Amino acid sequence: MSSAPRTPLMPLDEALATLLQQITPLNGSEWIATFDADGRVLAEDVVSSLQVPAFDNSSMDGYAVRCADLLPGAELSVTQRIPAGHQGQPLQAGQVARIFTGAPVPPGADAIVMQEQAELVTDGDIPRVRFTHRPQVGEWIRRSGEDIRQGQTALRRGQKLGPAELGLAASLGLAQLRVVPRPRVALFSTGDELVMPGDVAPQDMPAGAIYNSNRFFLRALLHRLGCEVSDLGIVPDRRDATLAALKTAADHHDLILTSGGVSVGEEDHVKPAVQALGALALWQIAMKPGKPFAYGHVRRETQNGTAHFVGLPGNPVSSYMTFLLLVRPLILKLQGVENLAPECLQLPAHFELPKADKRREFLRARRNDQGGLDLFPNQSSGVLTSVVWGDGVIDNPSGKTIAQGDIVHFWPFAGWLS
Amino acid sequence: MSSAPRTPLMPLDEALATLLQQITPLNGSEWIATFDADGRVLAEDVVSSLQVPAFDNSSMDGYAVRCADLLPGAELSVTQRIPAGHQGQPLQAGQVARIFTGAPVPPGADAIVMQEQAELVTDGDIPRVRFTHRPQVGEWIRRSGEDIRQGQTALRRGQKLGPAELGLAASLGLAQLRVVPRPRVALFSTGDELVMPGDVAPQDMPAGAIYNSNRFFLRALLHRLGCEVSDLGIVPDRRDATLAALKTAADHHDLILTSGGVSVGEEDHVKPAVQALGALALWQIAMKPGKPFAYGHVRRETQNGTAHFVGLPGNPVSSYMTFLLLVRPLILKLQGVENLAPECLQLPAHFELPKADKRREFLRARRNDQGGLDLFPNQSSGVLTSVVWGDGVIDNPSGKTIAQGDIVHFWPFAGWLS
Repeated sequence: MSSAPRTPLMPLDEALATLLQQITPLNGSEWIATFDADGRVLAEDVVSSLQVPAFDNSSMDGYAVRCADLLPGAELSVTQRIPAGHQGQPLQAGQVARIFTGAPVPPGADAIVMQEQAELVTDGDIPRVRFTHRPQVGEWIRRSGEDIRQGQTALRRGQKLGPAELGLAASLGLAQLRVVPRPRVALFSTGDELVMPGDVAPQDMPAGAIYNSNRFFLRALLHRLGCEVSDLGIVPDRRDATLAALKTAADHHDLILTSGGVSVGEEDHVKPAVQALGALALWQIAMKPGKPFAYGHVRRETQNGTAHFVGLPGNPVSSYMTFLLLVRPLILKLQGVENLAPECLQLPAHFELPKADKRREFLRARRNDQGGLDLFPNQSSGVLTSVVWGDGVIDNPSGKTIAQGDIVHFWPFAGWLS
Repeated sequence: MSSAPRTPLMPLDEALATLLQQITPLNGSEWIATFDADGRVLAEDVVSSLQVPAFDNSSMDGYAVRCADLLPGAELSVTQRIPAGHQGQPLQAGQVARIFTGAPVPPGADAIVMQEQAELVTDGDIPRVRFTHRPQVGEWIRRSGEDIRQGQTALRRGQKLGPAELGLAASLGLAQLRVVPRPRVALFSTGDELVMPGDVAPQDMPAGAIYNSNRFFLRALLHRLGCEVSDLGIVPDRRDATLAALKTAADHHDLILTSGGVSVGEEDHVKPAVQALGALALWQIAMKPGKPFAYGHVRRETQNGTAHFVGLPGNPVSSYMTFLLLVRPLILKLQGVENLAPECLQLPAHFELPKADKRREFLRARRNDQGGLDLFPNQSSGVLTSVVWGDGVIDNPSGKTIAQGDIVHFWPFAGWLS
């Protein structure tokens, strides 16, 4: 039993930079159906092999016309009808074509007039129209290649695919996309005090026991980042069990993620086990919540190389915040994603923080109807109520008090979760 | 062939209100493993059957003490050691206990001193410590029920579950949650010009043909909203095929969603088919992109009731925006979600819009490093490049021009997608 030495605190930015230096993007790629690619990351540029639109087409329901014909009072013959998906005939002088949204503009036509600006003249055999508007050349015509030119890079390697990206890839005719493999993450918890929900009813919980909640949100966060998660459960707090779990995990995963057991004085077999099988650095990060953090690697037995190891603090909010601020960028870099940071907002505080922490603090807060931020009253790192109540965190510098109306940096959770 | 009457445009807010009036939340509920509940919606309140924390516990690694004992220069005996998950013995006067984060505070102790503020005295049989800090009563103790009291409603019916909500539910011992059933959505496209990616190579595309892209992003958006999607593909543009598809879809789904074929003059069998099997209203919404929109219902043959029908415009960006602004709230209301609107930001325009549209316009834009908004140069509704490039849309009122530096309303896509 000894008091730990006073480790100097490491700034968060330094911790993140040090961490990311260790990470090289995963090798290889795989083909996946475009339909199933939401949340995945492109492994290669997508270059368009066609023009979008492929042909000049109407962006309105109306009439394809020759502008020069539209003299005041002119009545023009409607000689053809071009629905979407059909080719029209060349338009002669004095003629117009009934045309629908998306249909190809017929040769000879140089503008579209909306149907709301046309009046049908019903006497005679061939229908005629008068127009209440004189269009300019090109009006309501979407030009071939206006959106994407043939040969243009439409989506880039390292770009994360969302619904709109899938739609764009499909519009280029791509039924499959080459994506980065899913990072394989082994997740486990340690701690004699942990009980799995469902294993013991609340009224039967032994004294000192708590439910394991971290694995629930970590798993969901990992899935949202496109990881393949192996949940190894609660590993018994014994050296042999811990070594065995780490060895198995290292062989088949890119990252081993645990929570709990990373405080300086904490009782735990994970730290010595990781050290025995590879290397481990214990950081004291100058952030609140979330000071203790472990980064290392575990050698693989059956193949070359190592698996990354990250040990998150056990307190739920500390675990949640260190995941978002450190593990999320790590996983994005594994996937080759370039743009790592979510958007930060500048918003007025509608509260006071008279006592500042020495560490850079991430305060759970919520936007109110007046465009300001309310603070969750209980900033304890013990439970996730503050994260559920809040819709983001204020990034408050070390030692800085906050007065009513001060502009603060706010990170919405949505930017981290989508 | 006739020119359509000039339908007065309907304001978007009126369209949304009218739409939501038709929607009643889905009946029933189902149990789901908390591990699998990300993205689902709670069907009942979650009331805590325990205190969180369950017991007074240490929020630091250090020493549990009796404050009254900590006189200047005092050396106190370390008589026990309490790791997390273990119960301590009552602390007598003059004694302290080595304690670790999360461990129960022993009876008699009234504060924790961090280990960094303790100096171990190693002479003698029983280890003793001196403290460099005098704590206040309660210091570094997390009180039982501080985060959640027994009987407190921790999560509410209609609340959407994300990673943090799952963690919170787990911390209350809940291995399963009662959630709203997934809305069942039948999705199809119509249009003779549509070709599925993969069916025809880009170089072989017939004149006038375009790839079907809308179904790709609509499917992904529906999945993100927790829907069960039946993809009926491209339904042939014939009356019998359309009637058959609608009848089958109505019997087994809550919502039938199509894109294309909703313009006033458009060639299509969907509108008359929906009218034959139920009812349909064609709206001209005062928004850009996205003017045409159809809402109706289709009677079920094998059971009572109707399925909702929504017809989105065929242009990809129109389809995308009307989905976010109208279909997303519809689906959330089906799930009983109360809070329908994402957060809107007020940001300065770093561009000019000298010519305003008559309709309320949703301009694709992106936040830049200076905290302002850049505008995508091509606001055509034909392709999704603007949505991929942008990270949200500016909600610009009808007829309003924008000058450099004007504060505009901006909706980040992240708020709609997470």
